[in-house]
Amino acid sequence: MTRIVYVNGNYVPAEEAKVSIFDRGFLFADGVYEVTSVIDGRLVDFAPHADRLDRSLGELKMAWPVSREALREVHEELVRRNGVDQGMVYMQVTRGVAEREFTYPPSSTPTSLVAFTQARELVDNPNARTGVKVVSIPDIRWKRRDIKTIALLPQAMGKQAARERGAFEAWMVEDGHVTEGTSSTSYIVRDETVITRPLSHAVLAGVTRRTVLRLMAERGIRLDERPFTIDEAYAADEAFLTSASTFVMPVVEIDGRRIGDGQPGPLTRRLREIYIEEARKG
Amino acid sequence: MTRIVYVNGNYVPAEEAKVSIFDRGFLFADGVYEVTSVIDGRLVDFAPHADRLDRSLGELKMAWPVSREALREVHEELVRRNGVDQGMVYMQVTRGVAEREFTYPPSSTPTSLVAFTQARELVDNPNARTGVKVVSIPDIRWKRRDIKTIALLPQAMGKQAARERGAFEAWMVEDGHVTEGTSSTSYIVRDETVITRPLSHAVLAGVTRRTVLRLMAERGIRLDERPFTIDEAYAADEAFLTSASTFVMPVVEIDGRRIGDGQPGPLTRRLREIYIEEARKG
Repeated sequence: MTRIVYVNGNYVPAEEAKVSIFDRGFLFADGVYEVTSVIDGRLVDFAPHADRLDRSLGELKMAWPVSREALREVHEELVRRNGVDQGMVYMQVTRGVAEREFTYPPSSTPTSLVAFTQARELVDNPNARTGVKVVSIPDIRWKRRDIKTIALLPQAMGKQAARERGAFEAWMVEDGHVTEGTSSTSYIVRDETVITRPLSHAVLAGVTRRTVLRLMAERGIRLDERPFTIDEAYAADEAFLTSASTFVMPVVEIDGRRIGDGQPGPLTRRLREIYIEEARKG
Repeated sequence: MTRIVYVNGNYVPAEEAKVSIFDRGFLFADGVYEVTSVIDGRLVDFAPHADRLDRSLGELKMAWPVSREALREVHEELVRRNGVDQGMVYMQVTRGVAEREFTYPPSSTPTSLVAFTQARELVDNPNARTGVKVVSIPDIRWKRRDIKTIALLPQAMGKQAARERGAFEAWMVEDGHVTEGTSSTSYIVRDETVITRPLSHAVLAGVTRRTVLRLMAERGIRLDERPFTIDEAYAADEAFLTSASTFVMPVVEIDGRRIGDGQPGPLTRRLREIYIEEARKG
């Protein structure tokens, strides 16, 4: 089946999906994105992704390329056309096409919208059964990590460093404390309490984080929202990460140190089950 | 005249110049760039730009898309085809086209090369006669500013903030000290000594900076290579900035405070003349 993607109003085969070299997304990383997961052919948590997109666009003084309802229709049409049962819809808005200069083009310049699907087994992810390895790296990113921009080079470098060290993800460390993963939120568990960093400019407000914290509160699972050190992580009972594409993913090793007994922890496994159950409800 | 640009081996009209939406430059800001100025239809300092490109590519483990000689030919062909007498050649290398994931694609993936010209009056720039205004902003960028990447969103935000405050450029301040401008190197003059920040991961190694410092040394003009505070800048005798597109540009106002007598300073004017004379020699 030919993969169909969306580019500025048109559904086209992936090989024909192109943007101008003068698109500010290509020249300045002047854009934002969202990744929404799909289960059973349905979007998971589209509304909070659209809310976060709205915030990112606002922070960068960038206009919505289409209405929120039209954006949802693009997502659903892509899922339909590509027959996606499980996977993700990626979408990116950039400040549009303009002669290259650092200052923003006139606000009348249309913003660009591209979107595409990635089919992937999300629920029966073998990594979730074994748990994954993480390495720590210095957090060298800019100071506005709350904006979900496409200026992702440091994250790509970090993820690549992780893979070269045999790990699934890198946890970034700043002033001794873990900020987050290159494309996920970080958590540890100590005495049946989940510890994760509070929201600020230092981290992205994860949509999966938001849902997991709500589900925990509903079930009376204890939360301690505070920064934790990498040493605390080494000594934790359990560790996990969350993202739209991995849901709740057990972490069983950090920097070569086994976490707990080296198996996915019981609270982590429970949270993954609860999350998937909720996501399936639609 | 139709503007002709270069995209991965082809010279095409600017309106037809497109790249895949799966180019990692568009999705991850996974690329580097250079801007080389043109005077009298000739490239200025191409060799050090190619050297810096080589270093940027090396830091990101990215391959040259074409040979150094072929890259020079692309530059010269673009200048010829577009009849550029004065202006710039912009070039960008990205890690190429691949399915979206943070880790790097196989190293066999060809890197992408795009390049285009911007005709502009560089020598008789009216800004150089009056001098320009600068505002200071916090430096919120990542920690590897020595790599000339296309992850330029913070710089675009900074330049836009400057324009909205009626200034030509923003000088970024970190720990009380000026790092550099959003697309230029920063200098002050005190007692006929030029003060500029030494090279490190905190700033880009400007090609124009390099040439200006060499010309100064040849003429016995004193240099103090050290970080300076924004307060020192307010109290300086002169201030200026350098870049490939502005050469040596006098700064006459910082954050609304007049520098010296509010006119381009004598040492700054001399350096601009010397630089242009050198650049014209080719």
